Amino acid sequence: MIDAASLAELDAALPGRVSTAPADLTLYSRDQGPVLEPVLPGAVVHAHTVADVQALLRWATRHAVAIVSRGAGSGVSGGAHATTGSVILSLERMNRILEINADDETAVVEAGVINTELNDAVAEYGLMYAPDPASYRWSTIGGNVATNAGGLRCAKYGVTRDSVLALDVVLADGTLISTGHRTFKGVAGYDLTALMTGSEGTLGVIVGITVRLRYLPRSVHTLAAFFEDFPRAAAGVLAIGRARVQPAILELLDGRTLEALDGAHGSDLRSRGGSLLLVRTDGYGAAAEAEAIRTALVGLGASVSEEDSEEADRLVDLRRHSRGDEVDDLYRVGEDVAVPKSQLVHYVAALEAMAERHNVQLKVVAHAGDGNLHPTFWVERSEGAEAQERLEAALDESIRCALDLGGTITGEHGVGQYKRRWLAWEQSPEVLRLQAEIKKVFDPLGILNPGKAIVS
Amino acid sequence: MIDAASLAELDAALPGRVSTAPADLTLYSRDQGPVLEPVLPGAVVHAHTVADVQALLRWATRHAVAIVSRGAGSGVSGGAHATTGSVILSLERMNRILEINADDETAVVEAGVINTELNDAVAEYGLMYAPDPASYRWSTIGGNVATNAGGLRCAKYGVTRDSVLALDVVLADGTLISTGHRTFKGVAGYDLTALMTGSEGTLGVIVGITVRLRYLPRSVHTLAAFFEDFPRAAAGVLAIGRARVQPAILELLDGRTLEALDGAHGSDLRSRGGSLLLVRTDGYGAAAEAEAIRTALVGLGASVSEEDSEEADRLVDLRRHSRGDEVDDLYRVGEDVAVPKSQLVHYVAALEAMAERHNVQLKVVAHAGDGNLHPTFWVERSEGAEAQERLEAALDESIRCALDLGGTITGEHGVGQYKRRWLAWEQSPEVLRLQAEIKKVFDPLGILNPGKAIVS
Ligand SMILES: Cc1cc2nc3c(=O)[nH]c(=O)nc-3n(C[C@H](O)[C@H](O)[C@H](O)COP(=O)(O)OP(=O)(O)OC[C@H]3O[C@@H](n4cnc5c(N)ncnc54)[C@H](O)[C@@H]3O)c2cc1C
Ligand SMILES: Cc1cc2nc3c(=O)[nH]c(=O)nc-3n(C[C@H](O)[C@H](O)[C@H](O)COP(=O)(O)OP(=O)(O)OC[C@H]3O[C@@H](n4cnc5c(N)ncnc54)[C@H](O)[C@@H]3O)c2cc1C
Repeated sequence: MIDAASLAELDAALPGRVSTAPADLTLYSRDQGPVLEPVLPGAVVHAHTVADVQALLRWATRHAVAIVSRGAGSGVSGGAHATTGSVILSLERMNRILEINADDETAVVEAGVINTELNDAVAEYGLMYAPDPASYRWSTIGGNVATNAGGLRCAKYGVTRDSVLALDVVLADGTLISTGHRTFKGVAGYDLTALMTGSEGTLGVIVGITVRLRYLPRSVHTLAAFFEDFPRAAAGVLAIGRARVQPAILELLDGRTLEALDGAHGSDLRSRGGSLLLVRTDGYGAAAEAEAIRTALVGLGASVSEEDSEEADRLVDLRRHSRGDEVDDLYRVGEDVAVPKSQLVHYVAALEAMAERHNVQLKVVAHAGDGNLHPTFWVERSEGAEAQERLEAALDESIRCALDLGGTITGEHGVGQYKRRWLAWEQSPEVLRLQAEIKKVFDPLGILNPGKAIVS
Repeated sequence: MIDAASLAELDAALPGRVSTAPADLTLYSRDQGPVLEPVLPGAVVHAHTVADVQALLRWATRHAVAIVSRGAGSGVSGGAHATTGSVILSLERMNRILEINADDETAVVEAGVINTELNDAVAEYGLMYAPDPASYRWSTIGGNVATNAGGLRCAKYGVTRDSVLALDVVLADGTLISTGHRTFKGVAGYDLTALMTGSEGTLGVIVGITVRLRYLPRSVHTLAAFFEDFPRAAAGVLAIGRARVQPAILELLDGRTLEALDGAHGSDLRSRGGSLLLVRTDGYGAAAEAEAIRTALVGLGASVSEEDSEEADRLVDLRRHSRGDEVDDLYRVGEDVAVPKSQLVHYVAALEAMAERHNVQLKVVAHAGDGNLHPTFWVERSEGAEAQERLEAALDESIRCALDLGGTITGEHGVGQYKRRWLAWEQSPEVLRLQAEIKKVFDPLGILNPGKAIVS
């Protein structure tokens, strides 16, 4: 429990690291996900070293205090929201790149390193850290690992898990362990690295990460394919697949998203078509791949232009901003379902019908190469509780529908706090139970981010 | 316990599936790994259906009988060896391809499907199942998943785990669960699919597997680069990396391996050089990539020839046979360490020195693109116990050395039974303990392949 005595003990153990200033408590109380119930943490601790994290967790174990790990707070599932009686552990000051091994094609970073900073640092070696969530200028590698973040390039290069080789993790009792291996391959014992990846702060605090780097592509081609409407653009995704060409990036934006981007950034995307498929190929085969994709899409009636590198980067950047600056709340919720690729067209049509039926607003972007969609549903705040109910009904239906089509409730954002109500729709009681028991192995007192990620 | 009464009960539960014929017990008593202590199982059960597996495990739970799952028995770590009082569960009859979803780029198979059969079946759709252990004509997908098998193509396409989306698993008590998702991405809850992958039959019996398929490359180029000696060829691996070109296959064979292949297959590899780097590029950029690689290797003094497709396939096939037909025993042990790429040259030199110092024979092949080496050490059986001691000393030293260079004791073959003595050299007591506790969550009675994979 947090009280004056335990707080004083914490402050003595971690001098200068602990804040209870109201502004800090507010700032660190939430991430970008909808807040079901606003809660302030009891304190915020800024760790600078692994030893700081260990000291905090030893203290938390002694006093049975919940610890919510936090990177940049860019999460959108409420995974980093404060819960009652919790302390927020911010990793953002642990932001050193510890090693870049150009010949090994690996790097070792502290958890708080920002995604883009690692990419900037390794570019001079002709290398890149592939996972690039749209939040890459902001989110931390630690947070990316804790959520197993996806991103644009993961169509070709895989998700965060596919780039993580080894982890340093502080367990609930303060013990520091290392999982995995510095080599590309390794199968000694169970894959604890993968188990930690995506565990959203509920199994341990990730303090160090060894990542595998990929080759920075020498050549990049970018196509903007505008379609009359959204379902036709979704069909384009399948057509690229049927051509058996693997794009590096394959993003789908509907008309409402194009309108929103035009409004915010002064672009003229919506005038070019009702839906945009943004395709990037890279590597030695990029030109030929782009040509094969262009042929496939033109065959479907798309208007396809190859963009020069400046305009191409602008478009990809616009896509990264397509969430807009609005933070999700109870009137506006961004979803993160994924469906098998063959179901994209059906799902996109179903979403549009749902929005109409429930009388809610809808816009959709998708990491379409992976079948991962981000529909955002919203209603006007001024419409009040009744509109909120319509929103909830549309959300629930969109989840049910994705599951019926063989999909998942979350492709990359994580369950966090917000999506726990849907987890049992996807997973059986037995699978839920196994996860709760695994959690107990790592965190017998239940102090690591309770009420998140799993149902226990 | 297995006795006449419990065996009769088993036979009644699974009529026609249970064999206690001595020939069967012998045949199924071991895999291709060294046998520390020969043990016959109490029975062999051939499962035909998921229900068969469930019935067996319910019986095993009632009678506290150890179950050793077995695919093709091609493992080389003793993971499928019988242990005292165990029943062998053979999955080889569960060999149906249940679904091929060409648009989703996925397939669903039973555990006993042979790797090559899946590839044959999906090729007509322009697809491939990427993980291709050299045993691909023989080993099962279930066994590949249980060991997280690597292979030749995993330099580019990743290991088995990277192609597994979902699993159907029968738990120790007979419960059937499903893990993962049919979509390419998904982060709902903990990654139980990855936890099962590589768990070597100690956490559950894998009965069904949903895999992600990749695009069959339209174009393939193969280079044979012969070097004066082995360390120079290892330097070639680094040079390709420094050129930042990603081969699909990058295999390294030393002179002794070339001699052995020439002897067994009538080839003339050894006359072409002291060591062979076999490189394959694939996809739209294959020709340009091959050219860039050729330039890098010629710069190192290699004699590089591009092989026509028939000769290329023959070379790759020869590489797949480089283990030879000898089964490992106490006089001949194949290793499976991996080291960071920058350490390949040092490690290769160290291995040659070790073999000389301990007066043992050595040949080495390596999935060099991943830093994964298969040194085989052997002594003449006729030399007896003293030679065996020299062999053991060389083995231990090769493991220590790989660990000192930042490597792992096993890159792809698994710990099985044989490598358990080295596991604590790599992993801390705390990490070993966590694994033992995870095992208890899944298998409280300890009946799933006891004495394998982890130290508990
Ligand atoms: C504009 C925008 C675009 C986005 N685009 C994408 C996208 O393309 N793909 C994608 O996957 N996500 C995306 N996201 C979501 C978010 O950025 C990712 O989930 C990101 O990985 C979170 O990183 P973070 O450092 O902000 O973590 P936080 O939000 O601080 O935390 C996320 C979760 O991880 C836990 N955690 C954080 N650090 C640690 C640690 N060191 N140890 C243990 N647990 C920890 C937290 O407790 C929490 O549960 C986007 C978000 C925004 C706002
Ligand atoms: C010539 C040769 C070449 C090889 N090349 C490679 C290579 O390139 N890369 C590589 O990684 N390996 C290689 N191997 C090793 C071996 O082929 C792989 O480990 C393979 O994945 C084993 O598959 P299997 O079906 O034979 O499994 P088995 O040998 O029968 O079993 C392997 C392990 O998995 C468990 N298991 C098997 N099936 C199941 C199941 N359905 N559920 C739960 N547990 C199960 C067993 O208990 C055992 O622990 C090679 C072996 C040989 C003999």
